[in-house]
Amino acid sequence: MADQQARTDGNRRSTQIPVIRWEEPPEGPVLVLLDQTRLPSEEVELVCTDAPALVEAIRSLAVRGAPVLGIAGAYGVALAAVRGFDVAEAAHALEGARPTAVNLSVGVRRAEAAHQAALAETGDSTEAAAAALAAARALHREDAEASARMAAHGLALLDELLSGGGHRILTHCNTGSLVSGGEGTAFAVALAAHREGRLRRLWVDETRPLLQGARLTAYEAARSGMAYTLLTDNAAGSLFAAGEVDAVLIGADRIAADGSVANKVGSYPLAVLARYHHVPFIVVAPVTTVDPGTPDGASIEVEQRPGFEVTEVMAPQAPVTGVGGGIAVAPLGTQAYNPAFDVTPPELVTAIVTEEGVVSPVTAEALTELCTRSRGAAAVPRAGEPS
Amino acid sequence: MADQQARTDGNRRSTQIPVIRWEEPPEGPVLVLLDQTRLPSEEVELVCTDAPALVEAIRSLAVRGAPVLGIAGAYGVALAAVRGFDVAEAAHALEGARPTAVNLSVGVRRAEAAHQAALAETGDSTEAAAAALAAARALHREDAEASARMAAHGLALLDELLSGGGHRILTHCNTGSLVSGGEGTAFAVALAAHREGRLRRLWVDETRPLLQGARLTAYEAARSGMAYTLLTDNAAGSLFAAGEVDAVLIGADRIAADGSVANKVGSYPLAVLARYHHVPFIVVAPVTTVDPGTPDGASIEVEQRPGFEVTEVMAPQAPVTGVGGGIAVAPLGTQAYNPAFDVTPPELVTAIVTEEGVVSPVTAEALTELCTRSRGAAAVPRAGEPS
Repeated sequence: MADQQARTDGNRRSTQIPVIRWEEPPEGPVLVLLDQTRLPSEEVELVCTDAPALVEAIRSLAVRGAPVLGIAGAYGVALAAVRGFDVAEAAHALEGARPTAVNLSVGVRRAEAAHQAALAETGDSTEAAAAALAAARALHREDAEASARMAAHGLALLDELLSGGGHRILTHCNTGSLVSGGEGTAFAVALAAHREGRLRRLWVDETRPLLQGARLTAYEAARSGMAYTLLTDNAAGSLFAAGEVDAVLIGADRIAADGSVANKVGSYPLAVLARYHHVPFIVVAPVTTVDPGTPDGASIEVEQRPGFEVTEVMAPQAPVTGVGGGIAVAPLGTQAYNPAFDVTPPELVTAIVTEEGVVSPVTAEALTELCTRSRGAAAVPRAGEPS
Repeated sequence: MADQQARTDGNRRSTQIPVIRWEEPPEGPVLVLLDQTRLPSEEVELVCTDAPALVEAIRSLAVRGAPVLGIAGAYGVALAAVRGFDVAEAAHALEGARPTAVNLSVGVRRAEAAHQAALAETGDSTEAAAAALAAARALHREDAEASARMAAHGLALLDELLSGGGHRILTHCNTGSLVSGGEGTAFAVALAAHREGRLRRLWVDETRPLLQGARLTAYEAARSGMAYTLLTDNAAGSLFAAGEVDAVLIGADRIAADGSVANKVGSYPLAVLARYHHVPFIVVAPVTTVDPGTPDGASIEVEQRPGFEVTEVMAPQAPVTGVGGGIAVAPLGTQAYNPAFDVTPPELVTAIVTEEGVVSPVTAEALTELCTRSRGAAAVPRAGEPS
């Protein structure tokens, strides 16, 4: 089943981390993934030759992050089709690998629909497989293009808001190329500033409890040659007080119709600190993150995660959603409050940067206008929620 | 030299944790310490029969926290005197065990001075040893009494500020009986509320990077039978937003003459959140914490601690100030910003609770008046900085 092989590639130091790529060696097409469970200590690639191998990689969190999951799912369908396996069966297995990941399902269905349409039209399984692969590649390319447009809009906004020298940007959680078909959302803006020589410092929140900042964002920053410094989430207050933060850049998991932003827990305290210190608080997310069906912040249901993520410390190589096999740091029986997200009200958000432009000030009317414009422009829905 | 023995005492479940006690078994007097490096997974007592054993216990952080260090140092001098060792040599070794711990030095010198005075007066070494022991016991008792008075003043303030039902208190770091001759500072107030049936919930910040909240405060709360819940420091924002916090209670490492409060990093963000949500932010600390020689917050020098506390995760049983032998969670070479403390300006502090009464609003004049009154009342300086 799981026809995987691992190859270590620790000496490569390119700026662009190839988190996912389609390759066609002589022995047949494969999907190559950077194994995120081994980061940051090891760079190991997983080579998937069939859909079951990819299902296992998704389940083990070797590949994670909403946009990348959608892209992986689409490539998985293409892989089954190109290699002559049952496409419907592969699509079903891929969709079930992480049932709550909406983007995964969207990506799988897009490639599957392309495959079915081509098969119905041509009756040729080779052409149908090529159509599935083209759909996966289109999704991948669209996500990369959206990243690039968010980065450009975000950098222009930074330059407008911040006068003078280099920008000192504080970010939270992981929003770079590890979760994107391109260079991500908030991280992509910081990276654009870095490329233009206008990033003085990237402050990286470690992002408890799962330490995505320490493990993944620091890795992305190091790989990109950025000047970055890691801190515990609660040390951000000292940085604001010392005047060391020019702007906060974060991603979003969902944006309600009124502009309330659900994002990784710890985002809201940063928004309050930013307001208290008159520092811009900027959310970077694709338009698909805006959910018109969620009227306001109070309507956003916040997932409560297992307490052991707080009461135990996980070894970083272990899968982060394991069953509590970490080292206990609190007394046995300790109850923990462990919300996955928090909600920042629109009045604390300086701007929302999307691939279609910047919304500022953040109002329900401006978001509605953005969504209407975007849906007019895009014929095909894009998978794009960062996490 | 190190005449220590360990005894596990895991079944004991008294409310009062005997963090330090003097015992006189038939084989001679001993100082018994709860080994804090083994908490919360194991309750192990260290039995020190001489000063070198105590020096080793202080160095290994088996005993820690400013007030307790002062008491331990005084008992250590008494132990040397009672057992007939060279008192000056023991005092010198104890003072050098942690050179920056001011309270340790104060405690050692107080017992040594009592010993010298009695020896000069009576010429009798037994009487001199008894005087040293009496000085240690007096320091211990005074610290316990100060805790009790802070608890009473703090609870009265809570009852005054918060109308209606049980209090939901958020606290940060470790301020209970593990660092005190009594029941501590901020924690003692929460414990007093618990005993009166007026504590609905103690929210315990885990307190990165060293996790004193998870390891020690949760342990104290569990031992005391309090309703408590642990959270990552950055989840506090969600609690405030949900209206689940009635007051914040923290200790202090130093209070400047203008009322600026230096305390464990992460205190200042809580103060900003508390202000934004109109929640009282209360500092509980003995009068000795007020330093008239430090005019304001900007004059407080903040210790920068090693980056490996952030870039590595320590096994909880390992000494917390080790040399970086933890598990790496960030890429090699990652720089970390790791201030030990932050500074909260007086305008964000609702009240400072001391053993001599409550200062609110917090002004330089009110603090000066408090210090003058306290110095008139107390003939002997007390060791009392919590940490």
